[in-house]
Amino acid sequence: MEFVCSERMMSLKPSTIREMLKYTSDPTVISLAGGNPSADLFPAKEIEAAATEVLKNNAAVALQYGLTEGYPPLVKQIRERMKNKYGIDTPGDEILIVHGGQQVIDLVTKCLVNEGDTVISENPSFIGALNTFRSFKANIVGIPMDYEGMRIDMLEKALKTEKNVKLIYTIPTFQNPMGVTMSEERRRRLYELAVQYNVPIIEDSPYFELSYSGAPVITPMKAMDRTGHIIYAGSFSKVISPGIRIGYAIAPADLISKMTVAKQGVDVCTNQLMMVTISKYLERFDLDEHIRDCCEVYTKKRDYMIECIDKYFDKRVTHTTPGGGLFIWCDLPEGYSGTDLWRYALNKKVACVPGATFDVKSDPSNRGFRLNFSLPSLKEIDEGCRILGECINEFLK
Amino acid sequence: MEFVCSERMMSLKPSTIREMLKYTSDPTVISLAGGNPSADLFPAKEIEAAATEVLKNNAAVALQYGLTEGYPPLVKQIRERMKNKYGIDTPGDEILIVHGGQQVIDLVTKCLVNEGDTVISENPSFIGALNTFRSFKANIVGIPMDYEGMRIDMLEKALKTEKNVKLIYTIPTFQNPMGVTMSEERRRRLYELAVQYNVPIIEDSPYFELSYSGAPVITPMKAMDRTGHIIYAGSFSKVISPGIRIGYAIAPADLISKMTVAKQGVDVCTNQLMMVTISKYLERFDLDEHIRDCCEVYTKKRDYMIECIDKYFDKRVTHTTPGGGLFIWCDLPEGYSGTDLWRYALNKKVACVPGATFDVKSDPSNRGFRLNFSLPSLKEIDEGCRILGECINEFLK
Repeated sequence: MEFVCSERMMSLKPSTIREMLKYTSDPTVISLAGGNPSADLFPAKEIEAAATEVLKNNAAVALQYGLTEGYPPLVKQIRERMKNKYGIDTPGDEILIVHGGQQVIDLVTKCLVNEGDTVISENPSFIGALNTFRSFKANIVGIPMDYEGMRIDMLEKALKTEKNVKLIYTIPTFQNPMGVTMSEERRRRLYELAVQYNVPIIEDSPYFELSYSGAPVITPMKAMDRTGHIIYAGSFSKVISPGIRIGYAIAPADLISKMTVAKQGVDVCTNQLMMVTISKYLERFDLDEHIRDCCEVYTKKRDYMIECIDKYFDKRVTHTTPGGGLFIWCDLPEGYSGTDLWRYALNKKVACVPGATFDVKSDPSNRGFRLNFSLPSLKEIDEGCRILGECINEFLK
Repeated sequence: MEFVCSERMMSLKPSTIREMLKYTSDPTVISLAGGNPSADLFPAKEIEAAATEVLKNNAAVALQYGLTEGYPPLVKQIRERMKNKYGIDTPGDEILIVHGGQQVIDLVTKCLVNEGDTVISENPSFIGALNTFRSFKANIVGIPMDYEGMRIDMLEKALKTEKNVKLIYTIPTFQNPMGVTMSEERRRRLYELAVQYNVPIIEDSPYFELSYSGAPVITPMKAMDRTGHIIYAGSFSKVISPGIRIGYAIAPADLISKMTVAKQGVDVCTNQLMMVTISKYLERFDLDEHIRDCCEVYTKKRDYMIECIDKYFDKRVTHTTPGGGLFIWCDLPEGYSGTDLWRYALNKKVACVPGATFDVKSDPSNRGFRLNFSLPSLKEIDEGCRILGECINEFLK
């Protein structure tokens, strides 16, 4: 039988990055293309201890179906952590535990966006989110980024002219792919505009706790929300492990309850064994200490990659200097395409991600490319940047 | 802020069952309403051994992002098991591992059904699937069930008259909620009609391996598929544990690849730690032996519940005698509503599920109610059926 694809899926290409990762599993390729945390930092022993304790003493709960809302003790731990550490107050049913931060984006879009409605996104932005919006046949309007985050003046124009805007999507802190952090002033303006035009914001924030030396302490935008306009997408993927697939939404109870109904039809409930295990992990171990250890390692890697870029890349190539997260973004000079460089570098056995991948219109002339510093070793960072630098030199000749 | 719900979510009510389960967590209520396997049967020790081994020796893989298609060794184990035991041959990329069988239904609908398209379903049917179809704004056409399964004559009529039919949804073996198994003759006819009208079938089969003494050995319909019309939704929820949230789709590679792209936008990939752990479990332990142990316990419970029904219920109440699975379905005489009985019984501290819950049109006059025998103890089965029998007596007076 030949299957006829639904209209909503027609505009959707496989995530280039995930497809590319299949090819770059070639061990002779130095990959600066990933988006993964470093496997050396996973708290494997601690998760093992937590899982063992749970399966010995609480298996009847941990192996059964759970509440769609999430395992109540874990909901409580998230609530207390977000309140005590970041001033996000959620006294009622304002948390939903999901299979990773991506699922927050999926469920929110499902609940709020009709086919043809508009979603405003930073441009470039996280390909996974863009694909989710496409899969609901949303009209995506991209707002250019600069090195201070989303161009709020352009956002205001879009809000004035676009019809049926149902969501504004932002990664305000250590953005993927650019690594930039939205300034305080722009955050305030973004929130004011959301309230003024009555459009909810998805604040996608998987990286904000990976904040490196020199960066100011950053609080999620959700902490300034007094009107319920900010939907916070949180994740343990980058600070504990992505393989556990645990994320959470923080939003007004009304929306959380709709998302819960939607989730029942998507996958019934989040992995209960994993929720109970992570709850036990948080009870027994100090997550903040673990995050500090991660930040120490990543600070070194970021600093080293910046050093290598400055050493090996042509000076006409600009780059961001992220205060945290996993990524550095580079821009080739006017007239050069990141896609062309990417293809060229892949032949020389170095992988990056071309900017077009993150572009709302997938524009192949995008001048950018994304580099990841969390996954490669210092040696790979040096070697990868050196080869990439050579490619750029030949390329800009 | 007040959120305006998307059109697709408007027709969607919270799963009555999952909502009811919240109330029946009252320990003084005897619940025959669940759909869960018995926690006593979970292979907790074995899963603990598998998880420990994985976290000691393979944490860098198990805690990292995985391929969206699923963890390759687990895909291979599923492939070999389905081929060697049930004659389902999947030489190519025909398997996708997901967060439970429910996600197969969600991804297939997302990939194949446009808003307004028709999905044909058995009526009554699994509420979770009906809600998924509703969440994509599908037009659901219910085909009545009798005690031999879907009325194929009525299906044929519907296929002749309905427009834009994109899916036929069936649970052919030990159906939820009725516990009936579609006869061989009807299965053949169903498949022929799917091919003739070129409409794919979702064969949802979470229960078929829970086959009890006296029942003939049943093979999934997928084994007869020579044309790629059958999409098989498999699950480890009922034979290992629902808390692990591992299910799988078996379908032509073309559709699996579309579903993989859709899944990237929903939750990136299935829980990698769980996939690696279950792969280890299947390698170290004998799942078939475990299933035989489960069937032994469930055979006793089913037999006992049938005994209790025959002993306590008015003879005008008919019931199914399932060869396996978790459920028995009863019908009140003409003119009586299962919803009324359910409400009445709840006051007497016994919970069942009213037939209307599973009805495509949620018709409150539905005469049926569903009983579960896997979760309650023998004592609770006796006591629950006794009280329910009294309710029926008062009710039919």
